[in-house]
This record gives sequence, C-alpha cells and structure tokens, in this order.
Amino acid sequence: MSVTLAFILVASPLIAGQQRAEFPAELIEELRRLQQAALADDYAYRQTAHLCNNIGPRLSGSAQAEHSVKYVAEEMRRLGLEVRLEKVMVPRWVRGEETAALVEFPGQAPATTHKIVLTALGGSVATPAEGITAEVVVARSFEHLQSLGREKVAGRIVLFTYRFDKQMAEQGLAGDAYLQAVGYRGAGASVAARMGAVASLIRSVGGADFRLPHTGSLRYAEDAPRIPAAALASEDADLIAYLADQGRVRMRLKLTPQTLPDTESHNVIADIRGSERPEEIVIVSGHLDSWDLGTGALDDAVGVAVAMQTAQLIKKLGLRPRRTIRVIAWMNEENGLRGGQTYFENHSSHIANHFAVIESDLGAGHPTGFNAHLDPKAQPLLQPIADVLASSGAGIIKFVTNNVGADIGPLENAGVPGFSPLQDTRTYFNYHHTAADTFDKVNPRHLAENAAVISVLTYALANLPGQLPR
Amino acid sequence: MSVTLAFILVASPLIAGQQRAEFPAELIEELRRLQQAALADDYAYRQTAHLCNNIGPRLSGSAQAEHSVKYVAEEMRRLGLEVRLEKVMVPRWVRGEETAALVEFPGQAPATTHKIVLTALGGSVATPAEGITAEVVVARSFEHLQSLGREKVAGRIVLFTYRFDKQMAEQGLAGDAYLQAVGYRGAGASVAARMGAVASLIRSVGGADFRLPHTGSLRYAEDAPRIPAAALASEDADLIAYLADQGRVRMRLKLTPQTLPDTESHNVIADIRGSERPEEIVIVSGHLDSWDLGTGALDDAVGVAVAMQTAQLIKKLGLRPRRTIRVIAWMNEENGLRGGQTYFENHSSHIANHFAVIESDLGAGHPTGFNAHLDPKAQPLLQPIADVLASSGAGIIKFVTNNVGADIGPLENAGVPGFSPLQDTRTYFNYHHTAADTFDKVNPRHLAENAAVISVLTYALANLPGQLPR
Repeated sequence: MSVTLAFILVASPLIAGQQRAEFPAELIEELRRLQQAALADDYAYRQTAHLCNNIGPRLSGSAQAEHSVKYVAEEMRRLGLEVRLEKVMVPRWVRGEETAALVEFPGQAPATTHKIVLTALGGSVATPAEGITAEVVVARSFEHLQSLGREKVAGRIVLFTYRFDKQMAEQGLAGDAYLQAVGYRGAGASVAARMGAVASLIRSVGGADFRLPHTGSLRYAEDAPRIPAAALASEDADLIAYLADQGRVRMRLKLTPQTLPDTESHNVIADIRGSERPEEIVIVSGHLDSWDLGTGALDDAVGVAVAMQTAQLIKKLGLRPRRTIRVIAWMNEENGLRGGQTYFENHSSHIANHFAVIESDLGAGHPTGFNAHLDPKAQPLLQPIADVLASSGAGIIKFVTNNVGADIGPLENAGVPGFSPLQDTRTYFNYHHTAADTFDKVNPRHLAENAAVISVLTYALANLPGQLPR
Repeated sequence: MSVTLAFILVASPLIAGQQRAEFPAELIEELRRLQQAALADDYAYRQTAHLCNNIGPRLSGSAQAEHSVKYVAEEMRRLGLEVRLEKVMVPRWVRGEETAALVEFPGQAPATTHKIVLTALGGSVATPAEGITAEVVVARSFEHLQSLGREKVAGRIVLFTYRFDKQMAEQGLAGDAYLQAVGYRGAGASVAARMGAVASLIRSVGGADFRLPHTGSLRYAEDAPRIPAAALASEDADLIAYLADQGRVRMRLKLTPQTLPDTESHNVIADIRGSERPEEIVIVSGHLDSWDLGTGALDDAVGVAVAMQTAQLIKKLGLRPRRTIRVIAWMNEENGLRGGQTYFENHSSHIANHFAVIESDLGAGHPTGFNAHLDPKAQPLLQPIADVLASSGAGIIKFVTNNVGADIGPLENAGVPGFSPLQDTRTYFNYHHTAADTFDKVNPRHLAENAAVISVLTYALANLPGQLPR
C-alpha cells in the first residue's frame, strides 16, 4: 500500500513535468559524484567494524559508549569538521544475572527442570536476590489477561504470548509488525502489576527463531507497582503456552539488573560550515548508543557510519555546502531519548534555523529511496534528488505523516522537515535488540547504497534552491 | 550430482520393465493405506512434542533421558508391542559454567571486555576453577596451525576459524558441508594440544548466524594432553579473527564440565512379531538421546517419533507383517554410540537374521525418497516401494556406499542392508546441536511425509517377496 502510494507520488510530476524544480547543473554533477564515490568507498563499513568490533556494545552510561563518543569526535576532527560534545545526562541501567527455569510442568521427569531463555527488559527492576518462584499465567493479549480476572493473576508471573508477525515483516511491513507487538514490551509489566502479578514476561518482539531473546525498553506507569520484566525467546514462550494448556506450570525467575544514578554522556556534534547560509542547518545523524546484548551493528552503528561517511565524502571531493551540514551521533536513543531531547532544549531558541533533519535507524538494508516527513507539495522541490538516486535503485520519495527518527522526533514535532532512508527491513527485526546484532550482519554493498542515499540527500538539502514547506 | 544419479537409477527400470519385481496386489494396497494414514495422522507430531516439551533435553545419563526411555517403552506397550529395555552403559558428561571474554584487544575502551559466546564440546575437560587467561592464536586450518610452529602456539588458546559452508548446505549438500568442517570439532583439541596449546576453540560447525554456538562430541587422541575445548558462535569467531589481524587478543575462558562415572541406560526395543518369518527382523529406528542445549527435536525426537508411528499405524490399520518389525529407540548416539554397539554385541550370534535396518537421523525435512545402502542390483526389488512413495513426492531411491545411520552402522558394516529417508536438509545444520533445536522447528506436514516414507518402507521390507542382496 505505502509503496504504491509512493509510486503515484513519484510518478505524477513526471507527467506534469512543469512542476519539477530545476537544480543547477553543477549541483546535479556534484550529487552524481557523491553518489558514485559513496558506492565505491568502504569508509562507513570500516567505521561500523570499528564501533562494533573494537569498541563493542555501547549502552548509555557504559565505558564503551563514552569511548565511542571520543572515537567519533576524533574521527570527525581528523576530517576537518568543527566538533563539540554536547553534555547529556543519561540513565545508567546495568544488566545482571538473568536465569529462569520451569520447576513444575506436566509430564516432567522426576527432579528435572526446563531451562527458559530470556533477557531482562531495559529498565526492569530486579527480583529479590533469591529469585521469584510462582505459577505462570499465559495471556494471549491484554484483553485476554483482563478476562482472566485478578484472582487468577495475583501472585503469579504473567506471560504475554502475543506474536511478532514474522510473515508480515517478510512481506515488507516490518514496522507494522513491530508496532503491533511492542506495546506488550512497553506496557505489559504495568498492566500485569495492576492485576497483582509478581513479574511480567513477553514473547520476544522480533522474528528470530534461534532461541534468541530480544531486549528493549519498558515503561513503568506511575500508578502501578514496578515488577521485574523480561522477554523470552520465542521458543520458550511457545513451550510454556503448550505446557500451560496441559496443567500447572511454575517458574523460578531471577533477574538482577541495577539502576544506577544518571551519568554524564554526550551527543557528538560535528559541523561543516555552510558557505552561503551557515546559520541554516541540515542534520545528518544516527545513534551511537546501542543495547548491551549484541554490538549494535544494525542498531545503529550503520546509521552513525553513513552520517560520518557523508562528511568524509564531502571533504574528500572538496565540496562546499551552502548550508551547514551537521553530523550528529546521538546518545541514548535506546533507553531514554535524552540526546535528542537535550539537543532540542539546548537549541530551542533557533529551531527555525534547522532546514532539515535526517536520521538513519532501521539498519542497512538495500534502500529504495527516502522517507520525507513534510507536506507532499514539496515533491517537485525534492524530485531532482530522487532522479539522481534512481540510477542506483533508490528513486522513491515516500511522503509520510509520522516522525521518521526517534532522536530527531522533537525537531520534527516542531515542524522541521524530517528524512530517513527507505530500506528493505524484512530481516531487520530478526536481529534488532539481540545478541546477534553484530558486524557480520552488515552487507557492505547495501551499506554503500545507504551511504549514497544519505550523502546525496544531505548535500542536496544543504544546497536546495528555495525553502521547504513547513 | 547425486540426485541426477538417483534419477537414472530410478528411471532405467521403467524402460526395462521386465526387471521390476511384482508385489502382490494386496501388499500394494496395504502400502497405499499406510501411506495415506501416515499423511493424515499427527501421532508422530504429538510424540515429538511430548519428548521435547514435556520431557526436554535427553543427554545420555540424564534423568530426562531415562524418563524418555520409560515413556517410549510404555507407549509401545500400550500399542501392543513386545517391549524390552536393553541395558546400555553410557558416558555421563555434564555441562557446567561456560563463560569467556576478551580481556585485551586492539581499540579496547579502558577497563572493558568483549563477551564471547561459546559452549563446551561434549566430552571436554574443564579449565582450572579460576579459568584460563591466554593469548588467542587464530588458525584457518590444521595446515595453517602447523605452519605457525610450536613457538607461536604453546601456552596459547587456539581458535580454528574453518567455516561451515552455508551456501553449500543451502544448495542441498549439507552433509558434505558438515563433513568438511566437523574434523576440527573432533580432532582440533588434540592437534592443538600436541603443539602446546592450553585450550582449543572452533568456529561452530553449523549455519546459524544468530549468536548460537553448536556443541557436539570431540575425540581426545591417546597421545595428546587433554585440553578444554569449546565451539564459538560464528560471530564471535569472526570477531576474534578480525581483532587478531590488528594486534594481540587475550581471552579469559572458564569451562566447568564434569565427566562422571558411566551410568546405566537403555535402548528401547519393541517388536511386532512377524506372522510368517518371525526370526527375520526389520529394524526401524531413531535415537532417543539428544544434546543438552536444546530439546533434541530435529536431532532426533522426530526420528524416534516416525519409528513409533510406523508401529502405531500398522496396529491401527490391523496389518500383519510377515517378518518381525522391531522399533528401536537408541540410546547414546550423540556422545558414544554405545546403544548401537551394545545391540550389535548382544545380537552378534544372529546378525544374519536382520533383514534390513532403517534409521532416521537427519531431521524431518520434506523427503524425496530413501537412501539404500546395498548393492544397486536390488533396485528392481525395491522399485515397487518407490512407486508407491512417488505419489507423495518421495519416489527416489538413492543407492549409497556409506552407512546411512550411526546407530545402525555396526549392522551395516556387517552387511545388513541399511535405509534412511532422503530429506531436504538445507536448514538442518542451522539448528543441529544448538539451543534452538526445539519443537517449533518441526513442520507437521513434512513430518507426516517422513512418517509415510518410513512406515511404507518398513512394512514393505517386512513383507518383501524374496531376499535382498548382501
């Protein structure tokens, strides 16, 4: 549906050709050079490798996260950008021991237990040190849990078995599949706690079937007790559902995460000053922090790396943008969004100077164009960019009405036009927030294609004749 | 290549029709009824679920393994078979703690480590209680390790990075891909130990890229020190190879498995006595033990379950085989092969009475026919079986010269014709010996197709007019 719509939006000005804006021939030529250079350069790939392999997981507040801040800042300085670190106070949640086993279930061999693979949700409180042992109540949905009534839930561990729709994801609707299921990750613990549950579990929000749990943030409601919460590997959730259909299932659960005091971290902000309108800013960005289980390759070393490559290519080709291009490596997208919020607050007096904001945070699958969060009447102005990108298979402009990046969300909410690459995300949620989000998942060809989209889009926006509608 | 060859072998008698054996019409009718019943019955699927979900992992010597022996015996008795347990003394290896981290590597953030995901190989000795901390030496192959020389290996941890060829597996050559790589799992520890290494690691022998290590047995040579050995998730092996190219990598490794005294376990042997030649035996089998990480669904609850279903369908349809059909659930295929060896020794005086032996131990992918380990001149005798199976897409007879089952290997070595289903194994080694070998991996339709092949093949062999060549 969305693709069809985008096609129509792309196609119509080709018919009504007079609407199309004209870019200066020199700009078109520069965009083509950028595009070809991006497709041939492995800078982003090498940066991704360094962030994942040499530095590792980069959860907010960790030594690795702060090391990555220094690393990116130094790389940008080395390229000649004006770099500063913007202080961001971030939450400091530290994963602990996480073990679970079924201690009672139908058909059980004497004196045996069934190991359960799970991982604490980000922000979860701990169980008591000795763990919790309680019966498991299986709920297919929030409505199903309500229908069971407080009596059947109080004192028990709730398991929400709502499934991430893998087929929907494979059909190109990964984001929709994610949104359908992620509500249980965010709100499940408080919903269960209000009914007296002692812990809340979910079937992992993701498509892997390799005994791999997916973490991610939860949100405790103000009006509910805070109970421990974890995500089970899909297999383990299905196992419990099978056993609970036959009789009583009891689990021993131990989670020992800690929430430490907020700590100082940073957004990395690196500018290429505009030659004609330096006060107007085009942000190109990804987030530097990651979850702690993997090494944050797809989420989101690749996003940072293509933003870095945009600067690297502009410098390498000796291009001079008219507006200021600002590379930002955001801190704390995963569990607080403090980086995006802090930037917005610090720059509240001149939000209007932000010409456009770009973020890449859905992996590095083959891009087919870009998402544009602004009035579709901007289409003729943007069409020349799409025309350049079409030659590498990325010529779609998909106009959307939702924010296209979490860190740039506050700016988008304030009316700044937002952009992101339009990518193949069919397998993205198989790895997202898991231990398997590692460097080997990055396809170098597809990453280069993303670098081409981002660098062309960024430079074009920085040199766009005229203004975008707000 | 193999498929083409099999096609020729199948096709030729259709031309030279006079060679084809004729089955009595009644037998053909019985085989067709068995086939249709198998395709419509979920008995094997339910048995697989019970073995995996209600009982769980079944490593030799474990309480679950012995519970599964009792369970299968009881099921077979309930169907009316003559059941006995054959005592088998099995190794008792118990996995312990297994943790590893890189404590030194290029680009490392201050005071950080890199977590390494691994699992001990079956039979591995433990590290000292405090673990081992040593430099990692990367070897692409045995030859590469030798070329490094003892000086660069002694006192270090060797990592063999030889890759399981996933593309080869996806092209239908999974067994070849496995055989190429598994030598490092079996022999790596002793090869490394002879050069003074303190531990031996391999890149997992399997196709998963979900941070999932594959266990399996190693073999310590008599002439080498026994050093701890483990398999790394493919990602972690690749990470170390990347880092070691840049500089020194040191690992802290802790493995605490125990090898306890051998313990008593059992093969389950369940007979449907032959009506005309009860002394002649057709074995239909799978192995009941599994590795401990997953729940042994594909390896090999499904093999046991289709053997059980063969008996269940014969009883349900009121069929009476001329020869004795012997269902066997083998013990200790994974780490000792004691069940198959014990059976062979116990029956050494009447091996010749074994008319044919069948084992299914490569999962439950869609079957396209069966493997036949005997003289291809048997082809006309077997062709009527293939003709029946062809109607459900499983009409290939693939004559092979290697053994087709590990537990039936001693019988095959003694000249007994061996058979196994010919299956789609393209994804089998993604799950094999991992925590993800769980019930949800079993496709019920494909399992039913396997049950059809195995039950038709078993009953046909038990009623085969004439004798098979040996």
